[in-house]
Amino acid sequence: MDKNAAIGVFDSGVGGLTVAREIMRQLPEEKIIYFGDTARLPYGSKSKETVIRFSEQIIRFLRTKDVKAIVIACNTASSFALDEVRKVEDIPIIGVINAGARAAVAASKNGKIGVIGTEGTINSGTYAKAIMDMKPGVEVFGKACPLFVPLVEEGMFHDTVTDEISSRYLQELKSKYIDSLVLGCTHYPLIRSTIARTMGSDVTLVNPAYETAVQLRTLLRSMEMNCDEGRNLPVEEKYQFFVSDMADKFRAFATAILPDEVKQTIKINIEEY
Amino acid sequence: MDKNAAIGVFDSGVGGLTVAREIMRQLPEEKIIYFGDTARLPYGSKSKETVIRFSEQIIRFLRTKDVKAIVIACNTASSFALDEVRKVEDIPIIGVINAGARAAVAASKNGKIGVIGTEGTINSGTYAKAIMDMKPGVEVFGKACPLFVPLVEEGMFHDTVTDEISSRYLQELKSKYIDSLVLGCTHYPLIRSTIARTMGSDVTLVNPAYETAVQLRTLLRSMEMNCDEGRNLPVEEKYQFFVSDMADKFRAFATAILPDEVKQTIKINIEEY
Repeated sequence: MDKNAAIGVFDSGVGGLTVAREIMRQLPEEKIIYFGDTARLPYGSKSKETVIRFSEQIIRFLRTKDVKAIVIACNTASSFALDEVRKVEDIPIIGVINAGARAAVAASKNGKIGVIGTEGTINSGTYAKAIMDMKPGVEVFGKACPLFVPLVEEGMFHDTVTDEISSRYLQELKSKYIDSLVLGCTHYPLIRSTIARTMGSDVTLVNPAYETAVQLRTLLRSMEMNCDEGRNLPVEEKYQFFVSDMADKFRAFATAILPDEVKQTIKINIEEY
Repeated sequence: MDKNAAIGVFDSGVGGLTVAREIMRQLPEEKIIYFGDTARLPYGSKSKETVIRFSEQIIRFLRTKDVKAIVIACNTASSFALDEVRKVEDIPIIGVINAGARAAVAASKNGKIGVIGTEGTINSGTYAKAIMDMKPGVEVFGKACPLFVPLVEEGMFHDTVTDEISSRYLQELKSKYIDSLVLGCTHYPLIRSTIARTMGSDVTLVNPAYETAVQLRTLLRSMEMNCDEGRNLPVEEKYQFFVSDMADKFRAFATAILPDEVKQTIKINIEEY
């Protein structure tokens, strides 16, 4: 395995860019190949079997780029597919669930932890299992919030409608007196201020993206697989972006949230992999 | 061509069932093979090229079932793919756009017509072109309403949030004094009462599903291709349902909106077609 190979990062769309951004910040020497499955998004309302099949195709694509490790930067795909793909792949693959679970356990004092995410992520119970494996005895309360993604995609970050929907979805978790809440979907950090206002200042909001980059750094160090040539590469060579649809829209969004302008996004037919 | 063959009907998901329902009502002798692309929905935010590719795969699947005609029961797929697939297929294919446009023209007295739909449908300009081809001189005002589909899928048919979003989206059309409004997405008839309240009683709401079934009936008669054995078939043989994901959820929804219980929905891998 080549330590100067890139890290593969994938998501159903743009959400995983928040994870890529953390990797760029915390591991500035690493190269990244990002894939967003914009032709088939969202994943959150789809079945385990389908999300596994999509993830397998994406991993086959990323491996044609000789990546040395893969980050599943999508909570739904991490919930459904991580265990399956690890069985067959011979490179390290990490998801966002364990990192998010670990941070939530660390943040909670009263042992009552909330998790919000897509229907797929919440119904899978993967976060609850990961949290309870780490700290038996804690109570975990999950709540699917299907309208949060479309509200974010409409740009309604600060809006009375988003406030109202947030109040309705989170009421149940508030009534359980949770003291830490996992933002278990990569879109949710974009309405973090609304969620924080709804939950109140006693609840710590946990963003798995940050912890995932920490986990990746630890992993690469332990394997002595850190890239040693990435710092000198031009940014368009260091970070490469692929999607299955809407390349221009993706590029504009990526440029808005990443530290450097994204000059090129390449559209591929993922179904061929 | 066998006049006792089925009609193929497809949509990105469950929305096209409102069109299938109209065909069942108006052409009770016809058999239907329905396909819902639940693994890759929604189509409304995706590119023309991708929606054409998905539509071509679905038509290849439907043709393995020897359908005699195809109804594209999705406004986005009708907008993007109808002209393309007609070029290569040798059976009649109809979409929902022309039928909806014709009804809107008939309903308008002041020559100001509104169209609401997905981003794909509205940005394609297909409705506006169809309407202006039928009646030069009318004014057409389009408005994409991306949150309507997720609100319908959350079951928020009668809800203050849906009222608020409806007011925001439709304000622009109200200010143009339109007198007819095309519900240019198969989900929208499910929040018809909210849209009607927002627009007021002077605006006629047009549902293309009804007119599409009328057009299909006329077409089959003119070709002398009406089925003559469908009335005697058991319902589970007459109406068959296929999806690319979430078969059980689809079946429950279909049973709720169709006249007869849907006993079986078969999941297929549409990417193989």
